[in-house]
Amino acid sequence: MTRHATDELVLLPLGGAGEIGMNFNAYGFGPEDGRKWIVVDCGVLFGREGNTPGIDLILPDISWLAERRDDVLAIVATHAHEDHIGAIHLLWPMLRCPVYATPFTARMIEGKLEEAGLRERLKINIVPLHGRLKLGPFDVEFVSITHSIPEPNALAIRTPLGTVVHTGDWKLDPEPLIGESTDANAFRRLGDEGVLALVCDSTNALVEGESGSEAKVREALSTLIGTLKGRVAVTAFASNVARLDSVAKVAKAHGREVALVGRAMHKIVAAARDTGYLADFPNVLDEEEAAELPPHRVLYLCTGSQGEWRAALSRIAAGDHPNVKLGPGDAVVFSSRIIPGNELAIFELHNKLAGLGVEVLSAEDHFVHASGHPARGELAQMYRWTRPQIAVPVHGELRHMHAHARLAESLQVPQAVNVENGHLLRLAPGRAQVIDETPSGRIHLDGQVLVAEGAGLARARRSLAFAGMIAITLVLDSKDRVAADPTIILEGIPEPVHEAVRSAVEGALRRYNSKRDDEEKLRETVRRIARGAAEDAWGKKPVTRVEVVRL
Amino acid sequence: MTRHATDELVLLPLGGAGEIGMNFNAYGFGPEDGRKWIVVDCGVLFGREGNTPGIDLILPDISWLAERRDDVLAIVATHAHEDHIGAIHLLWPMLRCPVYATPFTARMIEGKLEEAGLRERLKINIVPLHGRLKLGPFDVEFVSITHSIPEPNALAIRTPLGTVVHTGDWKLDPEPLIGESTDANAFRRLGDEGVLALVCDSTNALVEGESGSEAKVREALSTLIGTLKGRVAVTAFASNVARLDSVAKVAKAHGREVALVGRAMHKIVAAARDTGYLADFPNVLDEEEAAELPPHRVLYLCTGSQGEWRAALSRIAAGDHPNVKLGPGDAVVFSSRIIPGNELAIFELHNKLAGLGVEVLSAEDHFVHASGHPARGELAQMYRWTRPQIAVPVHGELRHMHAHARLAESLQVPQAVNVENGHLLRLAPGRAQVIDETPSGRIHLDGQVLVAEGAGLARARRSLAFAGMIAITLVLDSKDRVAADPTIILEGIPEPVHEAVRSAVEGALRRYNSKRDDEEKLRETVRRIARGAAEDAWGKKPVTRVEVVRL
Repeated sequence: MTRHATDELVLLPLGGAGEIGMNFNAYGFGPEDGRKWIVVDCGVLFGREGNTPGIDLILPDISWLAERRDDVLAIVATHAHEDHIGAIHLLWPMLRCPVYATPFTARMIEGKLEEAGLRERLKINIVPLHGRLKLGPFDVEFVSITHSIPEPNALAIRTPLGTVVHTGDWKLDPEPLIGESTDANAFRRLGDEGVLALVCDSTNALVEGESGSEAKVREALSTLIGTLKGRVAVTAFASNVARLDSVAKVAKAHGREVALVGRAMHKIVAAARDTGYLADFPNVLDEEEAAELPPHRVLYLCTGSQGEWRAALSRIAAGDHPNVKLGPGDAVVFSSRIIPGNELAIFELHNKLAGLGVEVLSAEDHFVHASGHPARGELAQMYRWTRPQIAVPVHGELRHMHAHARLAESLQVPQAVNVENGHLLRLAPGRAQVIDETPSGRIHLDGQVLVAEGAGLARARRSLAFAGMIAITLVLDSKDRVAADPTIILEGIPEPVHEAVRSAVEGALRRYNSKRDDEEKLRETVRRIARGAAEDAWGKKPVTRVEVVRL
Repeated sequence: MTRHATDELVLLPLGGAGEIGMNFNAYGFGPEDGRKWIVVDCGVLFGREGNTPGIDLILPDISWLAERRDDVLAIVATHAHEDHIGAIHLLWPMLRCPVYATPFTARMIEGKLEEAGLRERLKINIVPLHGRLKLGPFDVEFVSITHSIPEPNALAIRTPLGTVVHTGDWKLDPEPLIGESTDANAFRRLGDEGVLALVCDSTNALVEGESGSEAKVREALSTLIGTLKGRVAVTAFASNVARLDSVAKVAKAHGREVALVGRAMHKIVAAARDTGYLADFPNVLDEEEAAELPPHRVLYLCTGSQGEWRAALSRIAAGDHPNVKLGPGDAVVFSSRIIPGNELAIFELHNKLAGLGVEVLSAEDHFVHASGHPARGELAQMYRWTRPQIAVPVHGELRHMHAHARLAESLQVPQAVNVENGHLLRLAPGRAQVIDETPSGRIHLDGQVLVAEGAGLARARRSLAFAGMIAITLVLDSKDRVAADPTIILEGIPEPVHEAVRSAVEGALRRYNSKRDDEEKLRETVRRIARGAAEDAWGKKPVTRVEVVRL
């Protein structure tokens, strides 16, 4: 009997271990041959111009799992954030398994399927809050928790070898304002039943204390907005429906009417209403109506808190929004955090607003945002409730995961395990350990084409961004003689360098004509000489390609 | 008599107004014809891959002033940070005027001139601390102040129309540990004499309170390092000589020997010693010697606090530093702030260190860094000392400058003026006002070539980074017929798109051959068709260039 011939319970993270975003976790149960799988979450990461120019979305490479797709029983979504559901419409065609989600999450996934033209092929199975599913050897219970979006769920995944509590993204909020609060009894009950492993959010594992309550944010927003006299624009993550509701209620309390600005705001409010939330959300004005009101009667609820240049707030700050104008006496409240990497874009937005005379207020000076992720105090509470045998930090960079593991150890969890994407972690039987490394990686959504990160396309474009390009075409006749002047196309290269490259290439061709060589060598010689001439004149080596036309 | 025929005192910021970095301020005195100028500081800004790929340094465009270079009397440097002196070796050839600086600053400028091969052409005039210079109509007094580098100076610039106090970068530190503390009496005395304008650092105008003292940082470092058992690496800005000294003293107190790691550390320590600082700095070990010591006996002082990938700490974290290895039980202390925009690089460095099992300690949790710029409490103190008629916030983004101006107004300064680069601000006679806008802008040091930002080279390369490039060469014979297959060079474009572009171009050429058109139209048609085919297949439009070879 080999080691893997018996039943095993394994966890295979293919995204989210070592990064914030792109969550993708597969749980497997059974012997190595014939193991059944369920996938928990299927999210994206957003590309960045500096690192991955031209890449909108980054997805996990799930080829290894896709080869086993007959054994993949389901994708289960914990909640509707992009880093948990944003890859479903792109990766589902590789798995073609049922998808399960609670009503609001299902509604958000369906919106994405609709845009991708997949709505008819894939029906989301709606699971009620507190629902329970039997998926092969897995018994999956949805446990309500709190986060910065409606209907976040932890999953209690029961198997014949023990129970895994997979938290998804969460925090503890006694007054979440929208939806249910954390089902503390359920977590306590699970702890009493016995939890094998807690697979848990690490985002704020470096933050002491507690994340704070939405109710306190609402109070702070009310106090702050009560002091403002001119137009007010509040920007927040559109998916934070409780925040949208708070802003609307605060506006009403201070005699302001609300206008939604930005497509995502309209989408989320519609989805929330369709699924039974925001029942008492006020009627919103359209942008034109709002522009007619006196400044102290209006509040704009805007997309664009991260400085996204196409979003509403960036357009307002640039002065080119068709209906919303802000100026001296007006204020913008950033009811949001700064996602690391967005600092410069956000500060640029602040600068533009300052240039218009608009006052900028943010979470730096006012409690107008609370994180949706558990700080160390909340993590400790979760460990006290569930008392797992094994802590598996996920959803975080390495620095967060390591801090989380150390915290778990300090809380007497018998074993804390750091995993990386592609690690096959055996949770049972026996002590948890990584038993295999499967192929993993990232896929780029480049334009509308999926390309493996390893193919190096984004990296090739970074080279272009650094030093531009030289494309040379040589024309040879049937006797290998140069038959015409070459074309030398230079892009992104300073003018004085052009002449240096041209004359170097011409010199090389003259030398070639007097002592002909084979075509391959000629191409390589010309490439080397052109690049070298650029380097001498410029100090940088452009990407250089040489082709030959034969007459 | 026209308005400008009388003597005027003007300020022309060409860099640093609306940005942190690239400080360049020119003060003019006299009638419009025959106005004499002095330049205060001549600094650079660092390029960023996302915005300005391939650009190391960004400089102010000083062409307007260079046209008047016979009237430019001097460049005066306040202190040796790159954003104040880093452009001297690049821009001095356009001005060719004397340069004045205090000894340490002069030594740092000379190091740069040496590297640029300008050492023989330009001798820096050394001004003693508290020195005073007569430069045409300007009487310039150096006033010692504190900052995060040795020998920071404010300048009291006396003119027949009043005195300007130009602060440079500063903070108030009762115990700066290295060099003189702020000459409070001099600022009080200037206030008593009467200050026309305070031209002042805005960097921390959004920060309440005080920046804190280096002495407190030294205490915190000592407490923290006293708790560490393994190897310790401390990373700090090399130019913060007081910090280097603190770290060395703390190391000694805890029985650790110091090794400097990284070129900038060695350079600064040498420059500081040459100019009379760090007299009791301990003898440092070389990296090989340090590697022989037991872990608790060594402290590495490293460059790379901003995650610069070529710097010492990044190489250590990647495990490819030849002499310095860190692992479990060791710790890295970031005795530095995060410069906005460097977050992801720094966190990536933290992640790599976490991956090695190294503990990361930073200013987030420990008082191991104090800012070198004045928080609002310190700004208020400076306004109380100098009691200027006019506040001119500089050295900051718009958000900082606007906050600074509002603060000055709240402190009863009669006039606070926001200026932008290129604004010619008349300080006297009469109420301060912008009387002209001169051409201004940015120059990129692109490789070793200076290129105007407006030329769009970096922008062109961003386009390449977004969607790659297609370079097509067509071959026509003397009768305008297509005489050979074209070459189509694609770079940074996914494979499936190549075929679509090729077949579209071939189709266009077949149509052309049956109905010939002029060459210019052919090129444009092929360009449009190639780009359109890429867009259809990919969703993005590559930069597309078409050239024609004539046989």
